[in-house]
Amino acid sequence: MSPQSYRSAVHISAIFGFYLSCAMLVPAFADFYSDHRDWIVFARASFFCGAFFAATVLATRDAPAQLNRKMGFLLVNLLWVVFSLVGAVPLWLSSKELNLMQAVFESVSAVTTTGSTVMVGLDHAAPGVLLWRSMLQWFGGIGIVALGLFVMPFLRVGGISFLRMESSDTNEKVFARIATFMRAFVMIYVAITLACSVAYHQFGMTQFDALNHAMTTVATGGFSTHDASFGHYDSVPLLWASTFFMTLCSLPFSVLILFVVKRSTTALRDPQILVFLGYLAVMGMALAAYHRVYNGVPFATALSHSFFNLASILSTSGYASEDYTLWGPFAVALAFFATFAGGCSGSTAGGIKAYRFVILFGAVRPLVTQILYPNSVTPVRYGGATVDPELQRAVFLFFAVFLALWAFGTLALGALGHDFTTAASSVITALSNVGPGVGPVVGPAGNFSTMSDPALAILSVLMIMGRLEVMTVLVLVSPIFWRS
Amino acid sequence: MSPQSYRSAVHISAIFGFYLSCAMLVPAFADFYSDHRDWIVFARASFFCGAFFAATVLATRDAPAQLNRKMGFLLVNLLWVVFSLVGAVPLWLSSKELNLMQAVFESVSAVTTTGSTVMVGLDHAAPGVLLWRSMLQWFGGIGIVALGLFVMPFLRVGGISFLRMESSDTNEKVFARIATFMRAFVMIYVAITLACSVAYHQFGMTQFDALNHAMTTVATGGFSTHDASFGHYDSVPLLWASTFFMTLCSLPFSVLILFVVKRSTTALRDPQILVFLGYLAVMGMALAAYHRVYNGVPFATALSHSFFNLASILSTSGYASEDYTLWGPFAVALAFFATFAGGCSGSTAGGIKAYRFVILFGAVRPLVTQILYPNSVTPVRYGGATVDPELQRAVFLFFAVFLALWAFGTLALGALGHDFTTAASSVITALSNVGPGVGPVVGPAGNFSTMSDPALAILSVLMIMGRLEVMTVLVLVSPIFWRS
Repeated sequence: MSPQSYRSAVHISAIFGFYLSCAMLVPAFADFYSDHRDWIVFARASFFCGAFFAATVLATRDAPAQLNRKMGFLLVNLLWVVFSLVGAVPLWLSSKELNLMQAVFESVSAVTTTGSTVMVGLDHAAPGVLLWRSMLQWFGGIGIVALGLFVMPFLRVGGISFLRMESSDTNEKVFARIATFMRAFVMIYVAITLACSVAYHQFGMTQFDALNHAMTTVATGGFSTHDASFGHYDSVPLLWASTFFMTLCSLPFSVLILFVVKRSTTALRDPQILVFLGYLAVMGMALAAYHRVYNGVPFATALSHSFFNLASILSTSGYASEDYTLWGPFAVALAFFATFAGGCSGSTAGGIKAYRFVILFGAVRPLVTQILYPNSVTPVRYGGATVDPELQRAVFLFFAVFLALWAFGTLALGALGHDFTTAASSVITALSNVGPGVGPVVGPAGNFSTMSDPALAILSVLMIMGRLEVMTVLVLVSPIFWRS
Repeated sequence: MSPQSYRSAVHISAIFGFYLSCAMLVPAFADFYSDHRDWIVFARASFFCGAFFAATVLATRDAPAQLNRKMGFLLVNLLWVVFSLVGAVPLWLSSKELNLMQAVFESVSAVTTTGSTVMVGLDHAAPGVLLWRSMLQWFGGIGIVALGLFVMPFLRVGGISFLRMESSDTNEKVFARIATFMRAFVMIYVAITLACSVAYHQFGMTQFDALNHAMTTVATGGFSTHDASFGHYDSVPLLWASTFFMTLCSLPFSVLILFVVKRSTTALRDPQILVFLGYLAVMGMALAAYHRVYNGVPFATALSHSFFNLASILSTSGYASEDYTLWGPFAVALAFFATFAGGCSGSTAGGIKAYRFVILFGAVRPLVTQILYPNSVTPVRYGGATVDPELQRAVFLFFAVFLALWAFGTLALGALGHDFTTAASSVITALSNVGPGVGPVVGPAGNFSTMSDPALAILSVLMIMGRLEVMTVLVLVSPIFWRS
């Protein structure tokens, strides 16, 4: 890679870093308005970070390099690291008294839309800090959809995109089209946030809470302004409203984008949509039935809480309406495995994702056929299309590497002294960007504040790896990448 | 499939069932000799089972069908089911007072060389029952090696064989060669059993214990004649002797067979050997270091117990020298993940197996290269050979289906009321044919006697699926199989 590429990657990251520094003025204003001394922290952080990035932008502005694959990978990694670090600065300096590692963890958890938190006493926290956490998730949500829809397919990592460009398109035309789609996406994203906010306010949240939760709902992030998360409100309509918006934002945004831009409904044919809604429905019904029978809860209550908490896990949001891990062993096991699953690609959700399950389990039948009739050729299909062997291999290997990371992470946290359930579930909740795990420490009733700094560091790295579809980070640590 | 094929499959299974019925006379004799009234149980079971199978053999002896793939799959499944059921009969009727499901579970655990047990009070059990359990494991060991070396490669499921036949060979020549290899294998298997038995006796076991443990060691089965397993003897030399033999029997038997038959050492080049020994060494050293530091145990002691217990898990034997899950959370996590790993194909070990890891992780580098240079073609290699895409896909899908079975099994056991750790670890220990799991119920200090019948039934099915490389059973439940 040429030195020019590095400079360009740094240049673009610095531009985004500068924007994020400016965004700190919003929580500064919120704290100033509500007369909380943290406004100085945000204002100062904004000024110094802004100045630093402005200088970096200026220092690297000469001749932008031609965009190529390696630079693309470097840039994506750099962007998420810069956002995480910049996001951490005001959290570190704020009145919440986090140490540096905790602040970084909280910020990574926000930017990757994970939603695991080391903060306690959210109910009495300054509005600035709460707003900042929600904003970081909201930005993280925009980032991941843009990445999934426009960058990943170009880098040929983890993505099936219905916004495919025609191969005859010239470079300018491609960029023009991406710009159109991107504008449409941001518009839709803002519109859903506002709609969600109105709904939440309607069903009983304060305006401040409604806005914060709406931002973390569309991002499927899961940060709340209360320690008890949605349990604080004790409102069934609120649970269903949230279930609706979390589910909506786990579906590929290409559906809405194509509808807005072209009035086309082609993207609805994406098979992962039905599969995702299918496993959500099956798991939700199973959990509701179990909760009804095992705990004798009225069916309507069981249904609301089951669907809300499962939609929260499967959309990788991570809100909780109550501690569902106390519902019985089946609930624990279901919550644990649901943490691996995730939503659709092209959405704000994380995890293994529905389209990979479509391909993985769509390949079983052809394999069985081939075992029985060795000369038969049965292609693996995704919707109407044949999945070429390269994509199949990429999907299979993602699955293997994802699980290997889970195993190694769990071993590392075990070596640091965390019990097996905590280790195994905090690692998978980080990798899948869900939020809470199971067990007394990191379960929906607990949080990550008691974890040691090395454990938080490991989980932070895993959150970023999980968010960037693993391979995007892995190519960067491969010697092949740095070979010129 | 023709009715003739069914008859042939039943015919061959009945022949083996008849042999196994005759083998019951050995424990009958042992109990008679030691004056225990269970001799009548074994004698009666032998007579009635023997008569039943003799009748079946006679009733189905007409015109044997040509061997084909579908019949091969049916036969393999039938053989393991017949062995499991016949093995259960004397256990059910014996003085140990197991119910029918417990007896079937114990027998399946034996025949699949798993080694999970529902029996307590082994130290005071009649010799006949103990011997019968060991013999079932020993036969199961022969069966699985024969299957892995000769049948699986022919059925193209889960197998890389160094005993490949030249394609110019005629049918008779192939069978003649298989017969030669099979004779050599049984000779080697008996020789190792005797050597192991002598070593165990030398290091302090009684002759009866030495013989029993030798049989369950070469089978990497793990049944013991004492509730405390190897902990009963408290002898370091015994631990190392067992570590050696368990490791030896986790390596592909093709190495020894080819050496005996052809004085060839080609099979030593099989890359899974190094990988298996590699992960055994790394995990063993890591666990020993942890045990030394975390529990302050002398290093020599830590080393002996770490290698013994890890070799026991990785070889899928399932002995224990003490409750290693009390060594600390890292030990629990390591034991848990080691349970997935397994030994080499072509051995008596189960699990995912080393050769699959060679292919899985050998495919990561080609994928990274392809992500960075989309037009490059980097083949996946296994030793010197290129792994064709079909085999890659079979390996990847095995991995996915194996883990899916683990997830569904854990959910089912959770629904039956078992806590998460018990459910997750008893399911994987069944699938991998290891024996003990982690946690207070099914950990090395516990056993399966408190589990409910439905849970034992699920685990029995999973043991057989795991033992037969999953796909062998899965093709049978596929509608494609039954289509004529």
